[in-house]
Amino acid sequence: MTTATYTVQGMTCGHCVASVTGALTQLPGVRDVTVDLDTGQVTVTSDEELDTPVVRDAVDGAGYALAS
Amino acid sequence: MTTATYTVQGMTCGHCVASVTGALTQLPGVRDVTVDLDTGQVTVTSDEELDTPVVRDAVDGAGYALAS
Repeated sequence: MTTATYTVQGMTCGHCVASVTGALTQLPGVRDVTVDLDTGQVTVTSDEELDTPVVRDAVDGAGYALAS
Repeated sequence: MTTATYTVQGMTCGHCVASVTGALTQLPGVRDVTVDLDTGQVTVTSDEELDTPVVRDAVDGAGYALAS
């Protein structure tokens, strides 16, 4: 099990949090997603380390952006 | 057919717009709802004039507030 923290830009409300959480939860091996709306920090716990491009695509697909 | 414009506080993104639009569209007699996210102005077209408390309840129920 591994945990990584990302910064997601553009989330403004609880709906945004739900969208990002939903998109990331659907990635293979993801066990838990925690979002801090104030900071944009998203913590993802997964079976294996995730590829950043995969995380980026999921966040993009939900309508948000992964900070660099 | 009648049209009224309200100001709704607390909408921050497209999801919020969708929530408010959905809540108001479900009121009896409502034909169209248009939301301007930047200004918070919500324009409702309905068969008959709506009672403001009914509109307020719908907006409250969606998690937002009608400006006095």
